[in-house]
Amino acid sequence: MRKINEECGVFGAYQVPEAASAVYFGLHSLQHRGQEGAGIAVSDGKTISLHKGAGLVTEVIQAAHLKQLNGMHGIGHVRYATEGGAEPENIQPLIARAQIGSLAVCHNGQIVNAAKLRREQEEKGHIFHGTSDSEIILHLIQGEKGPLMEKIKKACRQMEGAFAFLILTDRSLYAIRDRHGLRPLSIGYYGDGYLISSETCGFEAVGGVFWRDVEPGEVVKFSQKGIEFCYYTEAIEQKLCSMEHIYFARPDSNLDGLNVHMMRKTTGRLLAQKDQGALEADMVVAVPDSAMSAASGYSETSGLPLEMGLIKNRYVGRTFIEPTQEQRERGVRMKLSVNQRVIEGKRIVLIDDSLVRSTTARRIIEQLRSAGVKEVHLRIAAPEYRYPCFYGVDTATREELISAQMNPQALCAYLKADSLKFLTVEDLKHAYGSDHFCFSCFTGEYVTALYK
Amino acid sequence: MRKINEECGVFGAYQVPEAASAVYFGLHSLQHRGQEGAGIAVSDGKTISLHKGAGLVTEVIQAAHLKQLNGMHGIGHVRYATEGGAEPENIQPLIARAQIGSLAVCHNGQIVNAAKLRREQEEKGHIFHGTSDSEIILHLIQGEKGPLMEKIKKACRQMEGAFAFLILTDRSLYAIRDRHGLRPLSIGYYGDGYLISSETCGFEAVGGVFWRDVEPGEVVKFSQKGIEFCYYTEAIEQKLCSMEHIYFARPDSNLDGLNVHMMRKTTGRLLAQKDQGALEADMVVAVPDSAMSAASGYSETSGLPLEMGLIKNRYVGRTFIEPTQEQRERGVRMKLSVNQRVIEGKRIVLIDDSLVRSTTARRIIEQLRSAGVKEVHLRIAAPEYRYPCFYGVDTATREELISAQMNPQALCAYLKADSLKFLTVEDLKHAYGSDHFCFSCFTGEYVTALYK
Amino acid sequence: MRKINEECGVFGAYQVPEAASAVYFGLHSLQHRGQEGAGIAVSDGKTISLHKGAGLVTEVIQAAHLKQLNGMHGIGHVRYATEGGAEPENIQPLIARAQIGSLAVCHNGQIVNAAKLRREQEEKGHIFHGTSDSEIILHLIQGEKGPLMEKIKKACRQMEGAFAFLILTDRSLYAIRDRHGLRPLSIGYYGDGYLISSETCGFEAVGGVFWRDVEPGEVVKFSQKGIEFCYYTEAIEQKLCSMEHIYFARPDSNLDGLNVHMMRKTTGRLLAQKDQGALEADMVVAVPDSAMSAASGYSETSGLPLEMGLIKNRYVGRTFIEPTQEQRERGVRMKLSVNQRVIEGKRIVLIDDSLVRSTTARRIIEQLRSAGVKEVHLRIAAPEYRYPCFYGVDTATREELISAQMNPQALCAYLKADSLKFLTVEDLKHAYGSDHFCFSCFTGEYVTALYK
Amino acid sequence: MRKINEECGVFGAYQVPEAASAVYFGLHSLQHRGQEGAGIAVSDGKTISLHKGAGLVTEVIQAAHLKQLNGMHGIGHVRYATEGGAEPENIQPLIARAQIGSLAVCHNGQIVNAAKLRREQEEKGHIFHGTSDSEIILHLIQGEKGPLMEKIKKACRQMEGAFAFLILTDRSLYAIRDRHGLRPLSIGYYGDGYLISSETCGFEAVGGVFWRDVEPGEVVKFSQKGIEFCYYTEAIEQKLCSMEHIYFARPDSNLDGLNVHMMRKTTGRLLAQKDQGALEADMVVAVPDSAMSAASGYSETSGLPLEMGLIKNRYVGRTFIEPTQEQRERGVRMKLSVNQRVIEGKRIVLIDDSLVRSTTARRIIEQLRSAGVKEVHLRIAAPEYRYPCFYGVDTATREELISAQMNPQALCAYLKADSLKFLTVEDLKHAYGSDHFCFSCFTGEYVTALYK
Repeated sequence: MRKINEECGVFGAYQVPEAASAVYFGLHSLQHRGQEGAGIAVSDGKTISLHKGAGLVTEVIQAAHLKQLNGMHGIGHVRYATEGGAEPENIQPLIARAQIGSLAVCHNGQIVNAAKLRREQEEKGHIFHGTSDSEIILHLIQGEKGPLMEKIKKACRQMEGAFAFLILTDRSLYAIRDRHGLRPLSIGYYGDGYLISSETCGFEAVGGVFWRDVEPGEVVKFSQKGIEFCYYTEAIEQKLCSMEHIYFARPDSNLDGLNVHMMRKTTGRLLAQKDQGALEADMVVAVPDSAMSAASGYSETSGLPLEMGLIKNRYVGRTFIEPTQEQRERGVRMKLSVNQRVIEGKRIVLIDDSLVRSTTARRIIEQLRSAGVKEVHLRIAAPEYRYPCFYGVDTATREELISAQMNPQALCAYLKADSLKFLTVEDLKHAYGSDHFCFSCFTGEYVTALYK
Repeated sequence: MRKINEECGVFGAYQVPEAASAVYFGLHSLQHRGQEGAGIAVSDGKTISLHKGAGLVTEVIQAAHLKQLNGMHGIGHVRYATEGGAEPENIQPLIARAQIGSLAVCHNGQIVNAAKLRREQEEKGHIFHGTSDSEIILHLIQGEKGPLMEKIKKACRQMEGAFAFLILTDRSLYAIRDRHGLRPLSIGYYGDGYLISSETCGFEAVGGVFWRDVEPGEVVKFSQKGIEFCYYTEAIEQKLCSMEHIYFARPDSNLDGLNVHMMRKTTGRLLAQKDQGALEADMVVAVPDSAMSAASGYSETSGLPLEMGLIKNRYVGRTFIEPTQEQRERGVRMKLSVNQRVIEGKRIVLIDDSLVRSTTARRIIEQLRSAGVKEVHLRIAAPEYRYPCFYGVDTATREELISAQMNPQALCAYLKADSLKFLTVEDLKHAYGSDHFCFSCFTGEYVTALYK
Repeated sequence: MRKINEECGVFGAYQVPEAASAVYFGLHSLQHRGQEGAGIAVSDGKTISLHKGAGLVTEVIQAAHLKQLNGMHGIGHVRYATEGGAEPENIQPLIARAQIGSLAVCHNGQIVNAAKLRREQEEKGHIFHGTSDSEIILHLIQGEKGPLMEKIKKACRQMEGAFAFLILTDRSLYAIRDRHGLRPLSIGYYGDGYLISSETCGFEAVGGVFWRDVEPGEVVKFSQKGIEFCYYTEAIEQKLCSMEHIYFARPDSNLDGLNVHMMRKTTGRLLAQKDQGALEADMVVAVPDSAMSAASGYSETSGLPLEMGLIKNRYVGRTFIEPTQEQRERGVRMKLSVNQRVIEGKRIVLIDDSLVRSTTARRIIEQLRSAGVKEVHLRIAAPEYRYPCFYGVDTATREELISAQMNPQALCAYLKADSLKFLTVEDLKHAYGSDHFCFSCFTGEYVTALYK
Repeated sequence: MRKINEECGVFGAYQVPEAASAVYFGLHSLQHRGQEGAGIAVSDGKTISLHKGAGLVTEVIQAAHLKQLNGMHGIGHVRYATEGGAEPENIQPLIARAQIGSLAVCHNGQIVNAAKLRREQEEKGHIFHGTSDSEIILHLIQGEKGPLMEKIKKACRQMEGAFAFLILTDRSLYAIRDRHGLRPLSIGYYGDGYLISSETCGFEAVGGVFWRDVEPGEVVKFSQKGIEFCYYTEAIEQKLCSMEHIYFARPDSNLDGLNVHMMRKTTGRLLAQKDQGALEADMVVAVPDSAMSAASGYSETSGLPLEMGLIKNRYVGRTFIEPTQEQRERGVRMKLSVNQRVIEGKRIVLIDDSLVRSTTARRIIEQLRSAGVKEVHLRIAAPEYRYPCFYGVDTATREELISAQMNPQALCAYLKADSLKFLTVEDLKHAYGSDHFCFSCFTGEYVTALYK
């Protein structure tokens, strides 16, 4: 069975008028976390209504759908899917319709013992419709006895890995985060109700106010009685995925308290300090959009001007005609263009947020060179990415990770850059101001056991 | 939980080149059995591919889908849905993806103990995604142990009611019919392979040849070893749903050996015999399309000319703007038009296939009257429909069944007809040449126990 | 420039509340006259709003469009298009937006001197966006001086051929029919307002009442002053296209006073009289749907039973996957199925409405033979179709007309029928009760001059 | 008749293999100039094929369309439409199909004497289908006599205002720019062929190389004989629209030789110089995206850090559910979010590219204030916009232009900013290094006569 990566976004609303509408705007602000599928489930206190489909939130959900999604409690999901996992059965929310009441789930993360758990459930005669590990959560919960809070805690104890999920019932909503807090999840106020979001940027989008993060290992229950919370385990060790700050999250989100733009800017400054007195260049150029913050940090510390040497086309949608190989060789580019007049004959410091497979970096440097750049000094605002992630980042195998194959010197030659530098994990800890982060993709030291 | 009626159509192909294409054409010929959803699952001997969606076969399945549905074994479904059961989760084939291999199911019928079976399964922690009783079949089968043939037989023994379903695995295909044979299912040859269809009209559509019906209580397995068959029970008692002949099936199908057009024509002749010498009229008019055969039978026996007094608009698709109440009162009609010149001032014998809720008959008679008809003698080619069906016909409650509320005399007045006659169950037996039929909607004598 | 055939349907409403809605339902009842495109233009007394597109009325026009088509005057069009003329620029209504007010046109017919008129206009610097001859009408009218009634009359005098068209301005509506009345056009009452329709079946669909036909050569103007009418020429000679009765029109329409179903039934009786005592057969079978009326006429006169030996699939929409050549040879049929049980071993009289290219007839007879029919006696409820139509019927060249290539005896052998008979033009005149019809496709005697 | 603004983008390819594909990628790079409609016309040397529709290039044109657009010469258009001008008849390319050969046109600009020209043509009996002034160009050309080059020149002499358009015939292509060069148009090489684009960024997107600009008043003809060019007038006076640099164009385009990013950066530096020593602030924040270049210029000159205080949601497509007024008041924002952590308690210099209606600036300052900003010093990288544009910029009336209503001091209070500064026209001339620009929206000194 194929591995399905589940780095995506969830948003919930409890005791919020027109909850579906709040979830719609919240999901829209999380759209950068996944563009392949979207869905909303809403409860009116009696039954759960659901609408979902493939595409962007604004494509999948129309005004007519919102009208039929009545209720004050709701959850939603934006989905990132690797090619193999695009089946409609995998689009979330997933729902279990039972005669004693229905359960819907929205899940962000990757359960590392999913295959084992699924095998066990199948042996008991359970039926799985899709291939997503999120379906397992429903089975684990429904397979337990007792009040729902207990069932959820028992289910969580069986799962290893990264998970941050929401459960909607007819009358209540639960927000859960794994014991390492690998994926982010925060709570906000909204009038007399609550919002829950993968990133804090979702609160402002809807008009809410940040209250606090869901803590690692915590289960928070929202019901008519108010808020209850408890921990499903005592083995808690905070380890937020460091790629959330480096790449995934929106610059205006605060993850476990730290602003993403500010943290990225610090990494840019650290890169500049490494080059202090050692590099002569004319300007700093960012690979848009995620390296913009780091590039402005580099510019300020180095004193080099920040120039728009690369332009991103804003109108690349989900479906378009890709250039043929021949067209590509002729120079046809859909996404990134070089601003030739700016970089021609210049020595540039090129900042990128991270370097995983190297395909994009190689192509950009080639584009810059054929536009007449004099020197390209590539600076990566992250350490060398050398180990596959099992917690939800889409980097399938070690073979594909260029830094697992080459040291920086060889890689610099391969990329045809004039120089190449990375940050170290120590730099990251310095920028984060803490080591409560998962660095396993850089160090190979995984925070959980791994399964096959 | 709402009741979901499941009178629909299934089509299968085993060891047939481009099976998806054969299923596509087969389903198209069964389209009259359900227009709300369609889907095809195909196995290439290793994995099962699936495509389904809301709408007609020709809308849901495009050439690009057929190309991706590779394999020589396939099953498909056209779905009739009551308003409440239109969720995408209910569109078939349903699939259970398991690590030891996948199962897909297409089901036609209604399991009367579905609620009880589902409750039992939910208590074991099973998860249901939709509300269709077809999902239960997958759970029952996967909940059993042993070879698949045994698991299917054990599952069937737990189900009561009407069912005719197909199971597709990676390498084999099963066709099953309940012990009364309430829903039809037939097998045809196609080169070295086989076709299975709810109605025999599906064989000609694809270029196959009828072989035999699946018998009541029979499980037929198609695999690389050829065909195996056995019975899941000894309590077999043939009782084909009489409404299949009267209303559902296509005139060119043979159900358990009897041609639908011929049977309907006989019922028309029987109606004419009842009027022999007792009725003076100018012409026979059919309510198009399903009463055409009966009307021509009446015409031949009575000697009255058959005239096209009512015209059906062929272009009423799934989505259209319905007339407002005011427009309706002004006479706006989307579907049926009166051919005024033909019926003006005439005494007509109006033939309809059956009379369930009376809404349509009342409206037609009103249309005819305002177009100047002189007399309307309504003749129904079926007995009085007085009891709800629990085996898959969409007639929810006794309150809605007009013949449960009024005797023919009162009904004639209510409909503003000049006279009204029905067939008797004895007439039907005569037309069928047998009493191996379910007449429960006419007599209230149900062929199985009922559940709530 | 390709020839674009324009056999289609027009519908208008003047002084009718929610005119767009009336036109919508009216066009729906004319849908059999063209399925490739549809459109509605409506005036609210000040400006003209327009919506049109490719497809059926119910596909092209949604509730949201009707809401924006405000006004009490409107015209609409359903379009039949040959392959070459499917450009969006050709979909009607066509509109000329001028600073002194706009004009919209909906046209049914074929102007035989279109190429010449267009060349003249282009030489004056006029711009044509599409290739339809309907665009010429707008140019001719706008090229004249004086009140609009005068401009229309002058324009009509320049056009030769078949035309029945509607003109909508901000405040008035005109209905025009060519001097032979080759294409039908009728007027109905609707409250205080009026309806205009290609066929009378459109009046009942909307809740209106037939008043009178537009007469050949007549221009009828609907305005706030009421109705005015006049003739654009004195050279009037009524010659309704005989194929309208034989094939195009709906059975419940009355064309120039004669009911289509009744006329077709008479042709069936005439066919039966020719066979009286000369043919032994077991049953009559109609090619559905348009031969149904003739077949019941044949059945009544001959005493042979009318059986449903051929079934038409009602669900063939605009887009579907056609069988491959191989599948076709294996017997895959999307549209027509043989009811084998009914015709096996039988001698049948097969009735079709007309025989133009012979492709369909040949395929049906082959289907019947391979289903085991004993004898097929083909009877055509029309004369031999030997000359191309230049007035709007889609029969491009003489080479494609099978009756221009073979006499009935040779054709019978070619079609593999056991016998073959046609009607004569004299028979048709008898059935019509008049010779005020265009028989040019049967006789080659065209009612106008022809142009290249 | 409504005024239709026509600030949009055109792209052409002559003697280029698969011209439609080149135009597709070229238009994609011009997508920022218009998102409402797109279309491509291609000639294979004999006939012109056309496809167009509402939406983005990647939505309107699919692979299947490109396959049918065969030929080596092509032109295309992306359309910006004000609400009133969204009729399908206005989507370009527009085509005139004539028996002696067809003409297609793609036009960018606004013809100021359009109404007068149209009235004259209508009086001659010409028919207009849409309301766009581009249709007039076709009529003017076809109304002249002689070789096409002469006809085009004569047509141009009748038009006043801003226009840059492409004409495609079966075998040749023409590129024309008005005598002031108000709208940009450039020529590039591509193998043995040529590209023509509204902006030079289109050449890199396709793999071509910039050659030269079309000069004001020039008509360039591409044909099998190579390139010919001439001027339609001697009254040439270069006046490129200054808003092209300030707002419309992509930062990587060079307009009449000047790089857009570099020019914008200079304007940012000029703004900083005005504040030198006079303003205490903590950071510079750009209104994304078009003020990014100016903001980095301000940051470099002032020494203040450039921070990402406002975030633009990248996923706002054409159709989405807008927040209700109540939601908007609660703070729901689809497009722009404040990065609260960054700006809270800070004194910021907010840079925007221009200030036209003030709605957006007012809303942003309100958002910033409610997120806790301490001071907002708004700096506009353009002069006060006080006069309506008649040359294609969508600023309908003086009433809507806030700088026509208030001086900067009053406007600062109205916007609730702490201070507000604009550039002067002299600053712009300094940044441009020339006064060959149209500044009429700032000065009211229009470069042509105006018409009503």
